[in-house]
Amino acid sequence: MDPSEYGTYLVTQQSISGDRSTIDVVRAAIEGGVDVVQLREKDTDARWRYELGLELRELTAEAGVDLIVNDRVDVAEAIDADGVHVGQSDLPVAVARELLGPEAIVGCSTATAEEALEAEAAGADYLGVGTVYGTTSKDVDRYKNGVGPERIAEIVDAVSIPVVGIGGVTADNAAPVVEAGATGVAVISEITAADDPRAATAALADAVETAKGVGDASVADE
Amino acid sequence: MDPSEYGTYLVTQQSISGDRSTIDVVRAAIEGGVDVVQLREKDTDARWRYELGLELRELTAEAGVDLIVNDRVDVAEAIDADGVHVGQSDLPVAVARELLGPEAIVGCSTATAEEALEAEAAGADYLGVGTVYGTTSKDVDRYKNGVGPERIAEIVDAVSIPVVGIGGVTADNAAPVVEAGATGVAVISEITAADDPRAATAALADAVETAKGVGDASVADE
Repeated sequence: MDPSEYGTYLVTQQSISGDRSTIDVVRAAIEGGVDVVQLREKDTDARWRYELGLELRELTAEAGVDLIVNDRVDVAEAIDADGVHVGQSDLPVAVARELLGPEAIVGCSTATAEEALEAEAAGADYLGVGTVYGTTSKDVDRYKNGVGPERIAEIVDAVSIPVVGIGGVTADNAAPVVEAGATGVAVISEITAADDPRAATAALADAVETAKGVGDASVADE
Repeated sequence: MDPSEYGTYLVTQQSISGDRSTIDVVRAAIEGGVDVVQLREKDTDARWRYELGLELRELTAEAGVDLIVNDRVDVAEAIDADGVHVGQSDLPVAVARELLGPEAIVGCSTATAEEALEAEAAGADYLGVGTVYGTTSKDVDRYKNGVGPERIAEIVDAVSIPVVGIGGVTADNAAPVVEAGATGVAVISEITAADDPRAATAALADAVETAKGVGDASVADE
């Protein structure tokens, strides 16, 4: 799908999912309406991610959900993922694009407008921007060390590719991120560590959709 | 080059090279007669390895020395390395082969004859076998937790692709590894942490060549 449709974006991390496997969490997230899954699984080896990736590919393809691989372009190729997501310490966007070809989706983590413009120029299809909220507190006016919805708005203004907000986002604080112009929000713990990952996904998707309605209305009012 | 020519094999690790950069160490190793360099640099990020890899590719290509990338097939592709070296926790040999194509060199770390046969069947071009010596002690009869030259001989007998011994190998204890049938020896600290990496490489290359003479002679004697 086009990254402009990435409303609810799950980043996987089995180590915080308690008794559940990442497969369990992704299955629940799919039932709850997730749009895209990123295979991340920080601090695990490539073989494990590859084998998990093959399973996730089957699950997500069946559901019409996009599958993106964090960092490893080779794993993305090997499991026939829809694309890759790279950070500032990973392979450059232009290299990932060259290796994967023009059809693949290449996302890039950026925290500033400068990084965002550079990623867009290098061929990124979407941006992950954050950390939005330094804590998951409901008091979204603080952000602690997060960049906040203001930075989302700044980057959305600067680039013409979709922006997804990440970091400390919950169903309760997602609205300002979307209202700032983000296409959607990416989460790890909000879904993965939830008592009910399906319900948590549905609540997040609902918050994003509701905020998009508000956002659209406010645009129409201008 | 053909992996059967991998006599002296350097695996890079800047974190143990003191004041010297990996570039310094590789330049010295090339002067000392190294045949192949593996970009490993454990616990560093992909961007760093990619940028280092571009420099190493230039250096090694100029010298006619092979460049192999540890683990990351994508980095190998991105820097136009000669191939990749995968372990039992990395992408499977068959996947690396499929991604890199038939011309690339694919090496695989194996510790047992079973793993060695599996890697060969999957399309590996050479095997790294070890840990040979659990310590770098000159008392090579002990091996501590290393597999020893006997395991090298066992695996050399089992497969028809070249075998390189790795782990605790020094100029002083390389001979039994080569006499057991290894094409060569791979080292990290013996070169990287040496007072004089160029001299250390030359000494290691000399030990391997001398042992090959002995090995050939003993075969002729049979």
